[in-house]
Amino acid sequence: MKLGAIEAGGTKFVCAVGDEHGEIFEKVVIPTEAPTITMPKVYEFFENKGIERMGVGSFGPIDLNEKGGTYGRIQKTPKIDWVDFPLAEDIAKNLNVPVVVDTDVNVAALSESRWGNATDVDACLYITVGTGIGAGAVVNGQTLKGLSHPEMGHIGVRRHEKDSFAGACPYHGDCLEGMAAGPALEARWGKAGVELTEDPLVWEVEAHYLAQALVNYIYILSPERIIMGGGVMQQAHLFDLIRKNVVDMLNGYVSSPRLTPENINEYIVAPGLTDEAGVKGALGLVI
Amino acid sequence: MKLGAIEAGGTKFVCAVGDEHGEIFEKVVIPTEAPTITMPKVYEFFENKGIERMGVGSFGPIDLNEKGGTYGRIQKTPKIDWVDFPLAEDIAKNLNVPVVVDTDVNVAALSESRWGNATDVDACLYITVGTGIGAGAVVNGQTLKGLSHPEMGHIGVRRHEKDSFAGACPYHGDCLEGMAAGPALEARWGKAGVELTEDPLVWEVEAHYLAQALVNYIYILSPERIIMGGGVMQQAHLFDLIRKNVVDMLNGYVSSPRLTPENINEYIVAPGLTDEAGVKGALGLVI
Repeated sequence: MKLGAIEAGGTKFVCAVGDEHGEIFEKVVIPTEAPTITMPKVYEFFENKGIERMGVGSFGPIDLNEKGGTYGRIQKTPKIDWVDFPLAEDIAKNLNVPVVVDTDVNVAALSESRWGNATDVDACLYITVGTGIGAGAVVNGQTLKGLSHPEMGHIGVRRHEKDSFAGACPYHGDCLEGMAAGPALEARWGKAGVELTEDPLVWEVEAHYLAQALVNYIYILSPERIIMGGGVMQQAHLFDLIRKNVVDMLNGYVSSPRLTPENINEYIVAPGLTDEAGVKGALGLVI
Repeated sequence: MKLGAIEAGGTKFVCAVGDEHGEIFEKVVIPTEAPTITMPKVYEFFENKGIERMGVGSFGPIDLNEKGGTYGRIQKTPKIDWVDFPLAEDIAKNLNVPVVVDTDVNVAALSESRWGNATDVDACLYITVGTGIGAGAVVNGQTLKGLSHPEMGHIGVRRHEKDSFAGACPYHGDCLEGMAAGPALEARWGKAGVELTEDPLVWEVEAHYLAQALVNYIYILSPERIIMGGGVMQQAHLFDLIRKNVVDMLNGYVSSPRLTPENINEYIVAPGLTDEAGVKGALGLVI
Protein backbone atom coordinates (compact mmCIF):
# COMPACT_ATOMS: atom_id res chain seq x y z
CA MET A 1 0.00 0.00 0.00
CA LYS A 2 1.31 3.47 -0.82
CA LEU A 3 1.09 6.14 1.85
CA GLY A 4 2.00 9.82 1.81
CA ALA A 5 3.91 11.74 4.47
CA ILE A 6 4.68 15.42 4.91
CA GLU A 7 7.01 16.98 7.42
CA ALA A 8 5.72 20.55 7.31
CA GLY A 9 8.47 22.60 8.88
CA GLY A 10 9.14 26.29 9.25
CA THR A 11 11.83 26.34 6.55
CA LYS A 12 11.03 23.31 4.44
CA PHE A 13 8.35 20.77 3.57
CA VAL A 14 9.71 17.23 3.25
CA CYS A 15 7.29 15.15 1.20
CA ALA A 16 7.59 11.39 0.84
CA VAL A 17 5.88 8.34 -0.55
CA GLY A 18 6.26 5.25 1.62
CA ASP A 19 4.46 2.16 2.80
CA GLU A 20 2.91 0.58 5.88
CA HIS A 21 6.28 -0.84 6.99
CA GLY A 22 7.80 2.63 7.33
CA GLU A 23 9.81 2.26 4.14
CA ILE A 24 10.29 5.44 2.12
CA PHE A 25 10.52 5.12 -1.68
CA GLU A 26 10.70 8.67 -2.87
CA LYS A 27 11.25 12.04 -1.27
CA VAL A 28 11.35 15.71 -2.19
CA VAL A 29 12.18 18.88 -0.26
CA ILE A 30 10.21 22.03 -0.96
CA PRO A 31 11.01 25.40 0.67
CA THR A 32 8.37 26.82 3.01
CA GLU A 33 7.08 29.99 1.38
CA ALA A 34 3.47 31.21 1.35
CA PRO A 35 0.86 28.44 1.06
CA THR A 36 -0.05 29.64 -2.44
CA ILE A 37 3.53 28.95 -3.55
CA THR A 38 4.45 25.89 -1.47
CA MET A 39 1.25 23.83 -1.58
CA PRO A 40 0.92 23.54 -5.39
CA LYS A 41 4.46 22.11 -5.47
CA VAL A 42 3.47 19.62 -2.76
CA TYR A 43 0.42 18.55 -4.76
CA GLU A 44 2.45 18.26 -7.94
CA PHE A 45 4.82 15.81 -6.22
CA PHE A 46 2.05 13.58 -4.91
CA GLU A 47 -0.05 13.65 -8.09
CA ASN A 48 -0.63 10.21 -9.63
CA LYS A 49 1.46 8.48 -6.96
CA GLY A 50 -1.51 6.39 -5.87
CA ILE A 51 -1.27 7.18 -2.14
CA GLU A 52 -4.19 6.04 0.01
CA ARG A 53 -3.68 8.12 3.16
CA MET A 54 -1.58 11.11 4.20
CA GLY A 55 0.17 11.75 7.53
CA VAL A 56 1.37 15.27 8.31
CA GLY A 57 3.70 16.43 11.07
CA SER A 58 3.31 20.18 11.12
CA PHE A 59 4.76 23.26 12.72
CA GLY A 60 2.22 24.87 14.99
CA PRO A 61 0.21 25.88 16.74
CA ILE A 62 -2.28 23.81 14.81
CA ASP A 63 -5.81 22.73 15.69
CA LEU A 64 -5.87 19.00 16.43
CA ASN A 65 -9.42 18.81 17.74
CA GLU A 66 -11.20 16.35 15.49
CA LYS A 67 -14.59 17.45 16.74
CA GLY A 68 -14.27 21.18 16.24
CA GLY A 69 -14.72 21.68 12.49
CA THR A 70 -11.28 23.28 12.05
CA TYR A 71 -9.12 20.16 12.40
CA GLY A 72 -5.66 20.61 10.93
CA ARG A 73 -5.90 24.39 10.62
CA ILE A 74 -2.78 26.43 11.40
CA GLN A 75 -3.43 28.86 14.24
CA LYS A 76 -1.67 32.08 15.18
CA THR A 77 1.97 31.89 14.13
CA PRO A 78 4.69 34.39 13.30
CA LYS A 79 4.49 33.03 9.71
CA ILE A 80 1.64 35.34 8.83
CA ASP A 81 0.96 33.80 5.41
CA TRP A 82 0.03 30.58 7.19
CA VAL A 83 -2.25 31.95 9.91
CA ASP A 84 -5.63 30.19 9.61
CA PHE A 85 -4.49 28.11 6.64
CA PRO A 86 -6.63 24.91 6.62
CA LEU A 87 -3.69 22.56 6.02
CA ALA A 88 -5.46 19.22 6.48
CA GLU A 89 -8.58 20.27 4.61
CA ASP A 90 -6.60 21.68 1.70
CA ILE A 91 -4.53 18.50 1.33
CA ALA A 92 -7.60 16.26 1.58
CA LYS A 93 -9.40 18.29 -1.09
CA ASN A 94 -6.48 18.51 -3.52
CA LEU A 95 -5.23 14.94 -3.20
CA ASN A 96 -8.53 13.28 -2.37
CA VAL A 97 -7.15 11.24 0.56
CA PRO A 98 -7.88 11.08 4.30
CA VAL A 99 -5.39 13.22 6.24
CA VAL A 100 -4.07 12.77 9.80
CA VAL A 101 -2.22 15.73 11.27
CA ASP A 102 -0.12 16.06 14.38
CA THR A 103 2.58 18.37 15.69
CA ASP A 104 6.18 18.06 14.53
CA VAL A 105 7.28 17.10 18.05
CA ASN A 106 4.54 14.51 18.59
CA VAL A 107 5.52 13.01 15.25
CA ALA A 108 9.19 12.97 16.29
CA ALA A 109 8.22 11.12 19.48
CA LEU A 110 6.20 8.64 17.42
CA SER A 111 9.10 8.15 15.04
CA GLU A 112 11.56 7.46 17.86
CA SER A 113 9.10 5.05 19.48
CA ARG A 114 8.64 3.08 16.25
CA TRP A 115 12.07 3.19 14.62
CA GLY A 116 14.49 5.13 16.82
CA ASN A 117 15.77 5.13 20.39
CA ALA A 118 12.52 4.23 22.17
CA THR A 119 11.41 1.05 20.40
CA ASP A 120 11.75 -0.96 23.64
CA VAL A 121 9.36 1.18 25.73
CA ASP A 122 5.66 2.10 25.61
CA ALA A 123 5.80 5.73 26.69
CA CYS A 124 8.41 8.21 25.55
CA LEU A 125 8.91 11.94 25.37
CA TYR A 126 10.79 13.87 22.69
CA ILE A 127 12.01 17.40 23.38
CA THR A 128 13.73 19.68 20.92
CA VAL A 129 15.80 22.60 22.18
CA GLY A 130 16.60 25.00 19.40
CA THR A 131 15.11 28.28 18.19
CA GLY A 132 12.18 27.32 20.40
CA ILE A 133 11.52 24.51 22.82
CA GLY A 134 8.84 21.98 22.04
CA ALA A 135 8.06 18.51 23.22
CA GLY A 136 5.81 15.68 22.17
CA ALA A 137 5.00 12.34 23.71
CA VAL A 138 3.69 8.89 23.01
CA VAL A 139 1.39 7.56 25.74
CA ASN A 140 -0.50 4.27 25.59
CA GLY A 141 0.80 3.85 22.05
CA GLN A 142 -0.64 7.12 20.78
CA THR A 143 0.63 10.68 20.51
CA LEU A 144 -0.43 12.94 23.36
CA LYS A 145 -3.32 15.27 22.58
CA GLY A 146 -6.25 16.64 24.49
CA LEU A 147 -7.76 20.08 24.63
CA SER A 148 -5.14 21.05 22.10
CA HIS A 149 -1.61 19.79 21.61
CA PRO A 150 0.78 20.20 24.51
CA GLU A 151 2.97 23.29 24.68
CA MET A 152 5.56 21.83 26.99
CA GLY A 153 8.19 24.44 26.15
CA HIS A 154 6.24 27.08 28.02
CA ILE A 155 6.14 25.65 31.52
CA GLY A 156 7.39 27.76 34.41
CA VAL A 157 10.92 27.26 35.71
CA ARG A 158 12.74 28.47 38.77
CA ARG A 159 15.56 30.90 38.24
CA HIS A 160 19.18 29.84 38.58
CA GLU A 161 20.69 31.82 41.45
CA LYS A 162 23.40 33.31 39.21
CA ASP A 163 21.03 34.21 36.38
CA SER A 164 19.44 37.64 36.10
CA PHE A 165 18.29 37.36 32.47
CA ALA A 166 14.72 38.67 32.13
CA GLY A 167 13.59 35.99 29.67
CA ALA A 168 12.83 36.11 25.96
CA CYS A 169 9.34 34.61 25.57
CA PRO A 170 6.89 37.21 24.23
CA TYR A 171 4.02 35.51 26.10
CA HIS A 172 5.55 34.54 29.43
CA GLY A 173 8.97 36.19 29.69
CA ASP A 174 10.90 33.74 31.82
CA CYS A 175 9.20 30.44 31.01
CA LEU A 176 11.38 27.49 29.95
CA GLU A 177 11.58 28.58 26.30
CA GLY A 178 12.18 32.17 27.38
CA MET A 179 15.14 31.09 29.51
CA ALA A 180 16.69 28.15 27.67
CA ALA A 181 16.00 28.20 23.92
CA GLY A 182 18.76 29.26 21.52
CA PRO A 183 17.71 32.94 21.34
CA ALA A 184 17.69 33.15 25.17
CA LEU A 185 21.24 31.78 25.30
CA GLU A 186 22.34 34.33 22.74
CA ALA A 187 20.53 37.26 24.41
CA ARG A 188 21.81 36.36 27.87
CA TRP A 189 25.47 35.88 26.96
CA GLY A 190 25.76 38.11 23.87
CA LYS A 191 26.94 35.26 21.64
CA ALA A 192 25.38 32.28 19.88
CA GLY A 193 25.45 28.97 21.74
CA VAL A 194 28.12 27.45 19.53
CA GLU A 195 30.55 30.21 20.48
CA LEU A 196 30.00 29.81 24.22
CA THR A 197 31.75 26.53 24.84
CA GLU A 198 34.49 27.88 27.07
CA ASP A 199 32.38 29.15 29.99
CA PRO A 200 31.09 26.40 32.35
CA LEU A 201 28.47 28.75 33.87
CA VAL A 202 26.70 28.97 30.50
CA TRP A 203 26.02 25.25 30.49
CA GLU A 204 25.40 24.95 34.20
CA VAL A 205 22.59 27.50 33.85
CA GLU A 206 21.26 25.84 30.69
CA ALA A 207 21.25 22.38 32.29
CA HIS A 208 19.52 23.81 35.38
CA TYR A 209 16.54 24.94 33.31
CA LEU A 210 16.33 21.91 31.05
CA ALA A 211 16.64 19.48 33.97
CA GLN A 212 13.78 21.26 35.79
CA ALA A 213 11.63 20.77 32.72
CA LEU A 214 12.52 17.09 32.48
CA VAL A 215 11.76 16.57 36.17
CA ASN A 216 8.33 18.15 35.70
CA TYR A 217 7.70 15.97 32.65
CA ILE A 218 8.69 12.91 34.71
CA TYR A 219 6.35 13.86 37.55
CA ILE A 220 3.46 14.65 35.24
CA LEU A 221 3.84 12.20 32.35
CA SER A 222 6.13 9.48 33.65
CA PRO A 223 7.80 8.71 30.30
CA GLU A 224 9.91 5.57 30.08
CA ARG A 225 12.54 7.39 28.06
CA ILE A 226 13.34 11.03 27.23
CA ILE A 227 14.92 11.89 23.89
CA MET A 228 16.53 15.30 23.51
CA GLY A 229 17.18 16.81 20.10
CA GLY A 230 17.51 20.23 18.45
CA GLY A 231 20.37 22.61 17.78
CA VAL A 232 21.26 23.39 21.40
CA MET A 233 21.61 19.68 22.18
CA GLN A 234 24.39 19.46 19.59
CA GLN A 235 26.48 20.56 22.58
CA ALA A 236 26.83 16.93 23.58
CA HIS A 237 28.41 17.71 26.97
CA LEU A 238 25.00 19.10 28.00
CA PHE A 239 23.60 15.58 28.26
CA ASP A 240 25.69 14.60 31.29
CA LEU A 241 25.05 17.92 33.01
CA ILE A 242 21.32 17.51 32.51
CA ARG A 243 21.37 13.89 33.69
CA LYS A 244 23.19 14.83 36.87
CA ASN A 245 20.79 17.70 37.60
CA VAL A 246 17.75 15.47 37.00
CA VAL A 247 18.98 12.82 39.44
CA ASP A 248 19.78 15.50 42.03
CA MET A 249 16.41 17.25 41.66
CA LEU A 250 14.37 14.02 41.84
CA ASN A 251 16.25 13.29 45.06
CA GLY A 252 15.29 9.63 44.96
CA TYR A 253 11.58 10.35 45.01
CA VAL A 254 10.54 8.25 42.02
CA SER A 255 11.37 4.57 42.57
CA SER A 256 12.63 3.33 39.24
CA PRO A 257 15.83 1.55 38.25
CA ARG A 258 15.85 3.76 35.15
CA LEU A 259 16.40 6.90 37.21
CA THR A 260 19.48 5.86 39.17
CA PRO A 261 22.87 7.54 38.57
CA GLU A 262 24.02 4.29 36.89
CA ASN A 263 21.14 4.09 34.43
CA ILE A 264 20.18 7.70 33.77
CA ASN A 265 22.39 7.81 30.65
CA GLU A 266 20.07 5.27 29.05
CA TYR A 267 17.02 7.23 30.17
CA ILE A 268 17.93 10.67 28.79
CA VAL A 269 19.33 10.11 25.31
CA ALA A 270 19.96 11.68 21.91
CA PRO A 271 17.63 10.87 18.99
CA GLY A 272 18.18 7.58 17.18
CA LEU A 273 16.90 8.92 13.88
CA THR A 274 18.41 11.84 12.06
CA ASP A 275 17.29 13.20 8.70
CA GLU A 276 14.19 11.14 8.15
CA ALA A 277 12.74 11.32 11.67
CA GLY A 278 10.07 13.89 10.83
CA VAL A 279 8.83 12.42 7.61
CA LYS A 280 8.96 8.83 8.91
CA GLY A 281 6.96 9.88 11.96
CA ALA A 282 4.39 11.54 9.69
CA LEU A 283 4.13 8.24 7.86
CA GLY A 284 3.69 6.57 11.26
CA LEU A 285 0.48 8.58 11.78
CA VAL A 286 -1.27 6.66 9.01
CA ILE A 287 0.18 3.19 9.57
CA MET B 1 -21.40 -10.25 35.77
CA LYS B 2 -20.19 -9.55 39.28
CA LEU B 3 -17.05 -7.47 39.70
CA GLY B 4 -15.08 -6.47 42.79
CA ALA B 5 -13.72 -3.05 43.63
CA ILE B 6 -11.47 -1.79 46.40
CA GLU B 7 -10.65 1.79 47.25
CA ALA B 8 -7.51 1.22 49.31
CA GLY B 9 -7.03 4.47 51.18
CA GLY B 10 -4.75 5.61 53.94
CA THR B 11 -7.46 5.49 56.61
CA LYS B 12 -10.01 3.07 55.17
CA PHE B 13 -10.55 0.35 52.61
CA VAL B 14 -13.89 0.64 50.82
CA CYS B 15 -14.82 -2.72 49.31
CA ALA B 16 -17.71 -3.20 46.92
CA VAL B 17 -19.40 -5.70 44.67
CA GLY B 18 -20.77 -4.21 41.47
CA ASP B 19 -21.31 -4.92 37.79
CA GLU B 20 -20.09 -3.90 34.35
CA HIS B 21 -22.53 -0.97 34.25
CA GLY B 22 -20.92 0.68 37.26
CA GLU B 23 -23.76 -0.29 39.54
CA ILE B 24 -22.77 -1.07 43.14
CA PHE B 25 -24.80 -3.70 45.01
CA GLU B 26 -23.03 -4.06 48.30
CA LYS B 27 -20.33 -2.15 50.13
CA VAL B 28 -18.31 -2.35 53.32
CA VAL B 29 -15.79 -0.02 54.97
CA ILE B 30 -12.77 -1.52 56.74
CA PRO B 31 -10.24 0.58 58.68
CA THR B 32 -6.69 0.64 57.29
CA GLU B 33 -4.50 -1.06 59.88
CA ALA B 34 -1.59 -3.42 59.18
CA PRO B 35 -2.09 -5.71 56.16
CA THR B 36 -2.28 -8.75 58.47
CA ILE B 37 -5.33 -7.18 60.15
CA THR B 38 -7.01 -5.40 57.24
CA MET B 39 -6.62 -7.88 54.39
CA PRO B 40 -8.31 -10.90 56.07
CA LYS B 41 -11.39 -8.70 56.64
CA VAL B 42 -11.31 -7.69 52.97
CA TYR B 43 -11.15 -11.33 51.88
CA GLU B 44 -13.94 -12.28 54.25
CA PHE B 45 -16.21 -9.69 52.63
CA PHE B 46 -15.53 -10.88 49.08
CA GLU B 47 -15.67 -14.60 49.87
CA ASN B 48 -18.35 -16.48 47.94
CA LYS B 49 -19.57 -13.32 46.21
CA GLY B 50 -18.78 -14.77 42.80
CA ILE B 51 -16.74 -11.85 41.51
CA GLU B 52 -14.86 -12.41 38.25
CA ARG B 53 -12.34 -9.55 38.33
CA MET B 54 -11.06 -7.05 40.88
CA GLY B 55 -10.17 -3.38 40.36
CA VAL B 56 -8.13 -1.61 43.03
CA GLY B 57 -7.46 2.10 43.45
CA SER B 58 -4.66 2.31 45.96
CA PHE B 59 -2.70 4.80 48.00
CA GLY B 60 0.89 4.91 46.83
CA PRO B 61 3.51 4.91 45.76
CA ILE B 62 2.71 1.57 44.16
CA ASP B 63 4.41 -0.30 41.34
CA LEU B 64 2.23 -0.22 38.21
CA ASN B 65 4.75 -1.69 35.83
CA GLU B 66 3.13 -4.82 34.43
CA LYS B 67 6.40 -6.10 33.05
CA GLY B 68 8.53 -5.83 36.17
CA GLY B 69 7.46 -8.80 38.31
CA THR B 70 6.35 -6.62 41.23
CA TYR B 71 3.14 -5.23 39.75
CA GLY B 72 0.77 -3.91 42.38
CA ARG B 73 3.35 -3.88 45.17
CA ILE B 74 3.27 -0.95 47.63
CA GLN B 75 6.57 0.94 47.60
CA LYS B 76 8.14 3.17 50.23
CA THR B 77 5.43 4.89 52.25
CA PRO B 78 5.17 6.42 55.71
CA LYS B 79 2.77 3.54 56.52
CA ILE B 80 5.63 1.19 57.41
CA ASP B 81 3.42 -1.88 57.80
CA TRP B 82 2.57 -1.60 54.10
CA VAL B 83 6.06 -1.06 52.65
CA ASP B 84 6.68 -3.77 50.02
CA PHE B 85 3.29 -5.38 50.61
CA PRO B 86 2.35 -7.20 47.36
CA LEU B 87 -1.22 -5.89 47.27
CA ALA B 88 -2.26 -7.14 43.82
CA GLU B 89 -0.57 -10.51 44.19
CA ASP B 90 -2.05 -11.09 47.64
CA ILE B 91 -5.57 -10.31 46.44
CA ALA B 92 -5.20 -12.47 43.34
CA LYS B 93 -3.96 -15.39 45.41
CA ASN B 94 -6.58 -15.14 48.14
CA LEU B 95 -9.60 -14.47 45.95
CA ASN B 96 -8.43 -16.28 42.83
CA VAL B 97 -9.34 -13.45 40.43
CA PRO B 98 -7.37 -11.27 38.02
CA VAL B 99 -6.50 -7.93 39.64
CA VAL B 100 -6.01 -4.52 38.02
CA VAL B 101 -4.41 -1.86 40.21
CA ASP B 102 -4.03 1.87 39.73
CA THR B 103 -3.44 4.90 41.92
CA ASP B 104 -6.26 6.46 43.91
CA VAL B 105 -6.01 9.66 41.85
CA ASN B 106 -5.93 7.91 38.47
CA VAL B 107 -9.00 6.00 39.58
CA ALA B 108 -10.71 9.23 40.63
CA ALA B 109 -9.99 10.69 37.17
CA LEU B 110 -11.40 7.55 35.57
CA SER B 111 -14.49 7.75 37.75
CA GLU B 112 -15.12 11.39 36.86
CA SER B 113 -14.62 10.63 33.17
CA ARG B 114 -17.13 7.75 33.24
CA TRP B 115 -19.77 8.93 35.70
CA GLY B 116 -18.88 12.36 37.02
CA ASN B 117 -18.04 15.83 35.73
CA ALA B 118 -15.98 14.82 32.70
CA THR B 119 -18.27 12.44 30.83
CA ASP B 120 -18.40 14.81 27.83
CA VAL B 121 -14.62 14.93 27.20
CA ASP B 122 -11.90 12.43 26.28
CA ALA B 123 -9.02 13.69 28.42
CA CYS B 124 -9.36 14.90 31.97
CA LEU B 125 -7.21 15.52 35.00
CA TYR B 126 -8.19 15.05 38.64
CA ILE B 127 -6.19 16.77 41.38
CA THR B 128 -6.73 16.40 45.10
CA VAL B 129 -5.41 19.03 47.48
CA GLY B 130 -5.47 17.80 51.05
CA THR B 131 -2.90 16.26 53.39
CA GLY B 132 -0.87 15.77 50.22
CA ILE B 133 -1.32 16.80 46.63
CA GLY B 134 -1.83 14.14 44.00
CA ALA B 135 -3.22 14.08 40.51
CA GLY B 136 -4.29 11.50 38.02
CA ALA B 137 -5.39 11.69 34.43
CA VAL B 138 -7.28 9.94 31.70
CA VAL B 139 -5.64 10.22 28.27
CA ASN B 140 -6.84 8.48 25.12
CA GLY B 141 -9.47 6.74 27.26
CA GLN B 142 -6.96 5.18 29.66
CA THR B 143 -5.39 6.23 32.93
CA LEU B 144 -1.98 7.83 32.61
CA LYS B 145 0.94 5.56 33.41
CA GLY B 146 4.45 5.09 32.09
CA LEU B 147 7.71 4.55 33.87
CA SER B 148 5.70 4.60 37.06
CA HIS B 149 2.58 6.50 37.97
CA PRO B 150 2.76 10.28 37.82
CA GLU B 151 3.66 12.21 40.95
CA MET B 152 2.18 15.50 39.84
CA GLY B 153 2.06 16.94 43.34
CA HIS B 154 5.83 17.27 43.42
CA ILE B 155 6.47 19.59 40.48
CA GLY B 156 8.44 22.77 41.05
CA VAL B 157 6.61 26.04 41.59
CA ARG B 158 7.75 29.63 41.67
CA ARG B 159 7.54 31.42 44.97
CA HIS B 160 4.84 34.01 45.64
CA GLU B 161 6.57 37.34 46.23
CA LYS B 162 5.01 37.71 49.69
CA ASP B 163 5.74 34.16 50.80
CA SER B 164 8.90 33.23 52.71
CA PHE B 165 7.76 29.79 53.90
CA ALA B 166 10.58 27.26 53.44
CA GLY B 167 8.31 24.43 52.29
CA ALA B 168 7.20 21.23 53.97
CA CYS B 169 8.05 18.41 51.53
CA PRO B 170 10.66 16.06 53.03
CA TYR B 171 12.00 15.27 49.54
CA HIS B 172 11.92 18.63 47.77
CA GLY B 173 11.15 21.31 50.36
CA ASP B 174 9.31 23.91 48.34
CA CYS B 175 7.71 21.81 45.59
CA LEU B 176 3.95 22.19 44.98
CA GLU B 177 2.96 19.81 47.78
CA GLY B 178 5.54 21.39 50.08
CA MET B 179 4.01 24.82 49.50
CA ALA B 180 0.30 24.22 49.03
CA ALA B 181 -0.93 21.03 50.73
CA GLY B 182 -2.88 21.27 53.98
CA PRO B 183 0.14 20.82 56.27
CA ALA B 184 2.00 23.61 54.42
CA LEU B 185 -0.94 25.96 54.94
CA GLU B 186 -0.99 25.15 58.63
CA ALA B 187 2.80 25.43 59.07
CA ARG B 188 2.97 28.72 57.16
CA TRP B 189 0.11 30.48 58.91
CA GLY B 190 0.07 28.68 62.27
CA LYS B 191 -3.54 27.55 61.91
CA ALA B 192 -5.42 24.89 59.97
CA GLY B 193 -6.89 25.95 56.63
CA VAL B 194 -10.46 25.97 57.87
CA GLU B 195 -9.59 28.62 60.46
CA LEU B 196 -7.88 30.92 57.97
CA THR B 197 -10.87 32.20 56.06
CA GLU B 198 -10.54 35.84 57.06
CA ASP B 199 -7.16 36.66 55.52
CA PRO B 200 -7.21 37.21 51.72
CA LEU B 201 -3.41 36.79 51.46
CA VAL B 202 -3.72 33.16 52.60
CA TRP B 203 -5.87 32.30 49.61
CA GLU B 204 -4.06 34.54 47.16
CA VAL B 205 -0.83 32.64 47.95
CA GLU B 206 -2.60 29.27 47.80
CA ALA B 207 -4.23 30.07 44.46
CA HIS B 208 -0.87 31.28 43.10
CA TYR B 209 0.71 27.87 43.68
CA LEU B 210 -2.23 25.76 42.57
CA ALA B 211 -2.76 27.82 39.42
CA GLN B 212 0.92 27.40 38.47
CA ALA B 213 0.47 23.65 38.77
CA LEU B 214 -2.66 23.70 36.62
CA VAL B 215 -0.92 25.79 33.97
CA ASN B 216 1.95 23.30 33.82
CA TYR B 217 -0.53 20.42 33.57
CA ILE B 218 -2.26 22.26 30.72
CA TYR B 219 1.01 22.83 28.87
CA ILE B 220 2.20 19.26 29.37
CA LEU B 221 -0.98 17.17 29.27
CA SER B 222 -3.58 19.39 27.64
CA PRO B 223 -6.56 17.98 29.58
CA GLU B 224 -10.03 18.93 28.36
CA ARG B 225 -11.22 19.42 31.92
CA ILE B 226 -9.59 19.77 35.34
CA ILE B 227 -11.40 18.51 38.43
CA MET B 228 -10.21 19.71 41.81
CA GLY B 229 -11.07 17.82 45.00
CA GLY B 230 -9.68 17.23 48.48
CA GLY B 231 -10.00 18.93 51.83
CA VAL B 232 -8.40 22.25 50.91
CA MET B 233 -10.76 22.65 47.95
CA GLN B 234 -13.69 22.65 50.40
CA GLN B 235 -12.83 26.36 50.55
CA ALA B 236 -15.06 26.91 47.54
CA HIS B 237 -13.94 30.54 47.06
CA LEU B 238 -10.55 29.13 46.00
CA PHE B 239 -12.01 28.00 42.68
CA ASP B 240 -12.54 31.50 41.31
CA LEU B 241 -9.15 32.68 42.52
CA ILE B 242 -7.46 29.72 40.82
CA ARG B 243 -9.45 30.22 37.61
CA LYS B 244 -8.45 33.87 37.43
CA ASN B 245 -4.78 33.09 38.07
CA VAL B 246 -4.78 30.35 35.40
CA VAL B 247 -6.22 32.67 32.75
CA ASP B 248 -3.71 35.39 33.69
CA MET B 249 -0.73 33.03 33.65
CA LEU B 250 -1.65 31.42 30.31
CA ASN B 251 -1.80 34.95 28.93
CA GLY B 252 -3.79 33.83 25.89
CA TYR B 253 -1.11 31.42 24.73
CA VAL B 254 -3.28 28.32 24.29
CA SER B 255 -6.01 28.89 21.72
CA SER B 256 -9.06 27.19 23.12
CA PRO B 257 -12.57 28.45 23.79
CA ARG B 258 -12.47 26.45 27.03
CA LEU B 259 -9.73 28.66 28.46
CA THR B 260 -11.39 32.05 28.06
CA PRO B 261 -12.47 34.09 31.11
CA GLU B 262 -16.10 33.31 30.15
CA ASN B 263 -15.65 29.54 30.02
CA ILE B 264 -12.93 28.81 32.54
CA ASN B 265 -15.52 28.06 35.24
CA GLU B 266 -16.63 25.06 33.21
CA TYR B 267 -13.02 24.00 32.68
CA ILE B 268 -11.82 23.99 36.29
CA VAL B 269 -14.56 22.35 38.35
CA ALA B 270 -15.36 20.47 41.55
CA PRO B 271 -15.87 16.68 41.43
CA GLY B 272 -19.22 15.40 40.25
CA LEU B 273 -19.03 12.28 42.38
CA THR B 274 -18.74 12.32 46.13
CA ASP B 275 -18.66 9.28 48.39
CA GLU B 276 -18.49 6.55 45.81
CA ALA B 277 -15.96 8.14 43.45
CA GLY B 278 -13.03 5.98 44.56
CA VAL B 279 -14.73 2.65 44.64
CA LYS B 280 -16.67 3.28 41.41
CA GLY B 281 -13.44 4.25 39.69
CA ALA B 282 -11.81 1.04 40.94
CA LEU B 283 -14.72 -0.82 39.40
CA GLY B 284 -14.08 1.16 36.20
CA LEU B 285 -10.63 -0.43 35.96
CA VAL B 286 -12.11 -3.85 35.25
CA ILE B 287 -15.09 -2.83 33.09
